[in-house]
Amino acid sequence: MQLELQQTSGRLYIQVYQYYKELILSGRLASGTKMPSLRRCARELEISRTTVESAYLQLAADGYIIARPQSGYYVTELSAHQPSFQESKPVSSFPIVYNFASSGVDHESFRFDIWRRYIKSALRQDERLLSYGEPQGEKDFRETLASYVQTHRNIICSPDDIVVGAGTQSLLNILCPLLKDRKSVSFPNPSFVQGISVFEDYGFDVRCRDKDCDIIYVSPAHMTKWGDIMPVSRRLELVRHASDRGSIILEDDFENEFVYLQRPTPSLQSLSGGHGVVYIGSFSRLLLPSIRISFMVLPPELSKKYHLRASHYNQTASKAEQIALCQFIRDGHLAAQSRKLRRLYAAKLKDLLFAVRHAFGQDAAVRVGSGGTSLALRLACNVSGEQFLSRCKKRGVLVELLREESGFLDLLLSCSTMPAEKFLPGCLCLAQIWKE
Amino acid sequence: MQLELQQTSGRLYIQVYQYYKELILSGRLASGTKMPSLRRCARELEISRTTVESAYLQLAADGYIIARPQSGYYVTELSAHQPSFQESKPVSSFPIVYNFASSGVDHESFRFDIWRRYIKSALRQDERLLSYGEPQGEKDFRETLASYVQTHRNIICSPDDIVVGAGTQSLLNILCPLLKDRKSVSFPNPSFVQGISVFEDYGFDVRCRDKDCDIIYVSPAHMTKWGDIMPVSRRLELVRHASDRGSIILEDDFENEFVYLQRPTPSLQSLSGGHGVVYIGSFSRLLLPSIRISFMVLPPELSKKYHLRASHYNQTASKAEQIALCQFIRDGHLAAQSRKLRRLYAAKLKDLLFAVRHAFGQDAAVRVGSGGTSLALRLACNVSGEQFLSRCKKRGVLVELLREESGFLDLLLSCSTMPAEKFLPGCLCLAQIWKE
Repeated sequence: MQLELQQTSGRLYIQVYQYYKELILSGRLASGTKMPSLRRCARELEISRTTVESAYLQLAADGYIIARPQSGYYVTELSAHQPSFQESKPVSSFPIVYNFASSGVDHESFRFDIWRRYIKSALRQDERLLSYGEPQGEKDFRETLASYVQTHRNIICSPDDIVVGAGTQSLLNILCPLLKDRKSVSFPNPSFVQGISVFEDYGFDVRCRDKDCDIIYVSPAHMTKWGDIMPVSRRLELVRHASDRGSIILEDDFENEFVYLQRPTPSLQSLSGGHGVVYIGSFSRLLLPSIRISFMVLPPELSKKYHLRASHYNQTASKAEQIALCQFIRDGHLAAQSRKLRRLYAAKLKDLLFAVRHAFGQDAAVRVGSGGTSLALRLACNVSGEQFLSRCKKRGVLVELLREESGFLDLLLSCSTMPAEKFLPGCLCLAQIWKE
Repeated sequence: MQLELQQTSGRLYIQVYQYYKELILSGRLASGTKMPSLRRCARELEISRTTVESAYLQLAADGYIIARPQSGYYVTELSAHQPSFQESKPVSSFPIVYNFASSGVDHESFRFDIWRRYIKSALRQDERLLSYGEPQGEKDFRETLASYVQTHRNIICSPDDIVVGAGTQSLLNILCPLLKDRKSVSFPNPSFVQGISVFEDYGFDVRCRDKDCDIIYVSPAHMTKWGDIMPVSRRLELVRHASDRGSIILEDDFENEFVYLQRPTPSLQSLSGGHGVVYIGSFSRLLLPSIRISFMVLPPELSKKYHLRASHYNQTASKAEQIALCQFIRDGHLAAQSRKLRRLYAAKLKDLLFAVRHAFGQDAAVRVGSGGTSLALRLACNVSGEQFLSRCKKRGVLVELLREESGFLDLLLSCSTMPAEKFLPGCLCLAQIWKE
């Protein structure tokens, strides 16, 4: 390779830099090779020593060569030059045949064709997409949300009290600073790691099921993973207690739409008359997990605080998706999708229950709640949970372990992702693994 | 208001059009007012009747005036002048005619048709969209980013060290907890409210330009709002100082792509050999402000810490947009867009400088840096900044106030959003407000 220096274009040292970089990357200058001395290089290329030095410094800065005192520059180890493209997850060698573990969305349930139409139409609003989104969320979207939650959850709020974000965590990152006059927060169980992490990161004292905390995080429609919901009497009690104590309730209305077996219960927000409760809603389970849009309804006192700081926060949710979802809701598709999924998951959960009963008979205790998309299965078992899951995995069965204690394993089986016709063979396979 | 026509630059009729449009929008030409006849207007402005007619036709086409047979042109009802597309922001009573304040993207620069194609193709990946995104960002997207930053910024990293998020704030919300063994953070100036807020929320001691802090936040390609960049010598010095002190540098490579007047300077990350620097990149200014995708490259020590906690954080950026952007970059569109914008903004900034010089002559001091999309204008002024901005607003001119001191106002004028043909009438209007 010849280095022809272009005096005219660009700075010389960059050309020298590029020249050596290529020699090193192509392996023609092997690792460990001593670079020519500054003087020799300058003489051979007929340029100044300073130029060579600048190039060498840049090469060293970029890790291609290294200076050794009283000796000169040497090409570094080759491995350092190539980014090691490592797998982020070790690829499982066992293909998944029966997936009871995923909390995705039923493959048949979502009308991609409709959603694509709405996104396409949102992307046609060139002007609107050329500017940053509103920090609080698009105004028309917030108006639509306000009217949706009023109709479906009896929540009376102004669009000004709604804050949109890319997922619940983004909202908690806005909420935590507004709550910093409070110290302790209670979560219903330790499994909501994403929520707990955020509060811990902000220095809150995180506790478990302690209703005397300053902040009470609760998912009334998802009290347990197998779908227990909070009865109305306890909802009233909680609202009263929090109001007496001056605590703030964070009502995460997760899976409320999937409360099949009875009418949706009243939201804490509506029971409290809109005071002292932050209502949090999300669309991941209802539409697509990949749509990262959540929202929260702030009570007046926090809404005021938020507006003083609103300009400090950028919007995180995609503007195009907000525009699309806004029209999607206005045209009634969200309500229709919600009805459809409620029917679908209720039927699938029944099918799953039937498959479990058939495969395990009287050998297993099953817990099903009033909602959700999962059931809990208790098996007497003399191996550890870890061993059992690993055996399942080898046979292509994915399940979630809820807990293990004294000879029992509690497994969680979800009906949401897998098609119903795989329930029975999947449960039979699971039963066989268990019996072995 | 005097209209001074520039025969040389731009098309004459557009200047006449702008002139009347502003008079109408500001209400100085009330609705129902008869426009001067073509002949009279041509005589007064000393231009041809054809030019006036072209301007009137355009005003009529845009709904500002209406032709009445055998009578002439009349200003239409005021309501008709407001864009029918309801702004999501509270409609200001003063319509914006000249927007020097916005940091959006040039309307002509973005190929929406191409982007729509990529989004459409991403939305066809049904299976992929039915599951949650990877907390760290989609793997193929991170691979593409790693190779992009290696080519364009000399940054050698593994896709495992990259974390994707919906905007810089989302990334800082992940980063701050990883840095909690550190106490103080330095920002180059108090104007990056969004970044400062996050650190304050996590309890850091936020200071200004203090290089003895534990964390140093810096935007080397955007040192001042008017585009000063950090010289290489200072970059080396900063990297060395931080390394000696054990400080972490957060290198926000904001607007690096817009460094026109010289070759992009080496990144701090590459100068440091990848240690002790977090590199942060974003696409908002390069593509669309409404695309909320940023990424950071973590140094080994922080990457390790992150992976221990990765499952605590949900991904905030839209999965569909990540998939689309990944292929968009692979097909070379990002690099092309970057080259295009660099040329476009360099030309527009020159036009803006010309317009400012023409409108203010020797009365104003102008500062322009080596990059960016804005210039700073210092005006001697005996009213307060607030008063001045309010006067501007009433005339439909939006500018940003940098600071005010003892009889001087420093204004920031951006060339990015407004089309170049509005620079001159806009600057003339601004000069007039200033002279009043």
